[in-house]
Formats: sequence, structure tokens, C-alpha cells
Amino acid sequence: MVYVLQIDFKMEGPFGDEMADSFAELARSINQEEGFRWKIWTENPEANEAGGIYIFETKETAEQYLDMHTNRLAEFGITDVRAKIFSINSKLTEITNGPIN
Amino acid sequence: MVYVLQIDFKMEGPFGDEMADSFAELARSINQEEGFRWKIWTENPEANEAGGIYIFETKETAEQYLDMHTNRLAEFGITDVRAKIFSINSKLTEITNGPIN
Repeated sequence: MVYVLQIDFKMEGPFGDEMADSFAELARSINQEEGFRWKIWTENPEANEAGGIYIFETKETAEQYLDMHTNRLAEFGITDVRAKIFSINSKLTEITNGPIN
Repeated sequence: MVYVLQIDFKMEGPFGDEMADSFAELARSINQEEGFRWKIWTENPEANEAGGIYIFETKETAEQYLDMHTNRLAEFGITDVRAKIFSINSKLTEITNGPIN
């Protein structure tokens, strides 16, 4: 049973290619986190928002990552963070082709 | 360029298998929506919350779906809906294996 972590927050940028250059190394390090499966990086330059959708192998590893990442975001000056951890309804997700495996 | 729609809301249930039975037909109909790629169905029975993470092919089809779905949720008595549409940072998402294709 995998878990979804969804995070979003206000951010002044960078977005797009500049964001990609700034955070490529961070992205590679996320691949090494315990229980981590994948992350979709979300951004909305018009609304000055960004975030991520993650899949973790367990609730505990999702919670662990969220604690660590919340502290890291605070170091970047980002404190208005909204985060939620959900389990997945596998049967419905299978019908709608959700890529959780 | 695909778009993420993330939705979550308070819900009294059903969750799990009972939720899957109740919404299987709805799930199949979502596969037919314009621009729809996939949906992960999220749930948190302890917190009485549920929602979904969707990928749509365009911002317009994501917005269209959100309008329709918000009305449908209201018919189920669910009005406390939080929804956000984001573009995706493809370069970073590629590094962290986000399944957006």
C-alpha cells in the first residue's frame, strides 16, 4: 500500500527552466530518500505557487520526508506550506489508470 | 504540456472497498472526460478526507473538469472542496521519475 504526499506553498520563484537549474541537484537527492517512488514537480508562476505530488512506499516514510522537507523549505524562507498525506483507493485508481506501481 | 489537478475535501465516507463499489461506475465515466489521462484516488478515513490527483492534457480541460466535478460533489453534499491546478516542471519531474507521459 503506497501513500500520496501532496505539498503546495507560496513561492516568489524561480519557475520553469530557472527552477530546474536551481533544484536539479536537490531532485537527484530526493531519489535517494527512504521509501521514495516518484515526484511530480508542480508550479504556477501566475499565482506564485509551487509544490509536489509524491508517492512513498509507507505512511511512515512519507511522514519522515515531510518533516525533513518542511524544515528545508523553511530554510528557503517558505513557511506557508500546505501538506497532506493520503492512502490510495487502489481499486478505483486501477480503473482510472493511476500510476502507483 | 500536461497539467495537474489536485482536489481534496471533507467526507464522511464510504472509504476503502465500500467506496470502490459506490464509485466504480463514476470512475469508468471519468476515463471518458476530455483531456483526461489518469487519476489517483486519495482517502484518509481517520481524518474524514478524500480527493484525487489528476493529469489532464491541457489547462482548459482540467478547468472544465473541475467545474463539472465541483458541481457533482455539491450534489453529494460535499461543498468544502480545495482544488488547485498546476503546470508541471518537466525537467525536475523527469529526474524524479514522475509518470506524466
